[in-house]
Amino acid sequence: MDIAFVLYDGFTALDLIGPYEVLAGPPGATPHFVAADRDTVVCDSGLPVRPTTTFAELTRPDIVVVPGSSQWRTALERTELTSWLAAVHPTTTWTASVCTGSTLLAKAGVLTGRPATTHWAARDALAELGAQVSTDRVVVDGDVITGAGVSAGIDMALQLAAQLWGEDSAKLIQLALEYDPQPPFDAGSPEKAGPELTAAIREGVLPA
Amino acid sequence: MDIAFVLYDGFTALDLIGPYEVLAGPPGATPHFVAADRDTVVCDSGLPVRPTTTFAELTRPDIVVVPGSSQWRTALERTELTSWLAAVHPTTTWTASVCTGSTLLAKAGVLTGRPATTHWAARDALAELGAQVSTDRVVVDGDVITGAGVSAGIDMALQLAAQLWGEDSAKLIQLALEYDPQPPFDAGSPEKAGPELTAAIREGVLPA
Repeated sequence: MDIAFVLYDGFTALDLIGPYEVLAGPPGATPHFVAADRDTVVCDSGLPVRPTTTFAELTRPDIVVVPGSSQWRTALERTELTSWLAAVHPTTTWTASVCTGSTLLAKAGVLTGRPATTHWAARDALAELGAQVSTDRVVVDGDVITGAGVSAGIDMALQLAAQLWGEDSAKLIQLALEYDPQPPFDAGSPEKAGPELTAAIREGVLPA
Repeated sequence: MDIAFVLYDGFTALDLIGPYEVLAGPPGATPHFVAADRDTVVCDSGLPVRPTTTFAELTRPDIVVVPGSSQWRTALERTELTSWLAAVHPTTTWTASVCTGSTLLAKAGVLTGRPATTHWAARDALAELGAQVSTDRVVVDGDVITGAGVSAGIDMALQLAAQLWGEDSAKLIQLALEYDPQPPFDAGSPEKAGPELTAAIREGVLPA
């Protein structure tokens, strides 16, 4: 099972590595890190990652996982990326996104008229790109599964793992990753964090 | 603020990228990916990451974050790594670990007689290395903060962010990462997953 983890400059590392850690371990899974070319890709906080293959070489992945980016509006202009997504989606078993990765799928035409989720701050943009926007953390619609912002990729991937390998396997992965979350604060959504912090994020305020 | 994210072959990607995503964003934070040399490091599921600096070059990091590994017993033999940890810890503001990264800190002498946590399957080994093992998800002891298995690095790093930049900044980061976890199953600890799945992990069974 060839799993394509999509790389592009400015991607958000945890969007990709959450699902990667969940999905890449089982013996039947073959992870690929695919980009436009083999040049090192730098994520939006500076992590340098080396692609293992290219869009031209990987034309029939079974599963595609598209991460988002804090520079997602710029990423929408990457036609080599959205063209590849449009080309490979018809033959995937599952096409998945995390965070604003769903805007790339929408730009590629994959989400037109379909329910999907995204980072809470990008919901309007995803709607403008033609999707039926949900505020759920994970949305499954046929062969497309989308997760909300950044950390939601772990929850999305566990649901995908259950679809691929059954619930017991997904639970085994959860136990191996000791995924028993205990956030020290309760500020993970606009509703919980309140209007001040939410406005700060919308205005681009950086913590500290 | 120089933050050293430690790389070595076989490290677990999410152990590192969880804290990285939490800690690397604020303007005052300068993330470094440090390894014995600048050769590409491959994590335990195949992700190739390029170090940005070396142990020899980075001698006074303010913060050190040590990830674990599914091959952590082998990692304990990496004396260049444990020697570096022993050398830099006395001048760090915080020394942090995720998962079996705490066994590396213990091997380096950082945890002798101190409370610390680790992946649930490595508790006995951590005790043998001289730490006072806790089953808590995050343990703070003076200038050392340790997290439990893999995904616990996110919870650990949010606590560390609150120490570094205050609670409001930590909440802002949590909101930016939309960290409002909703695991589809309740199997993230041995107690919750039950004896069968726990025994399977101990015996090295891989999911699917």
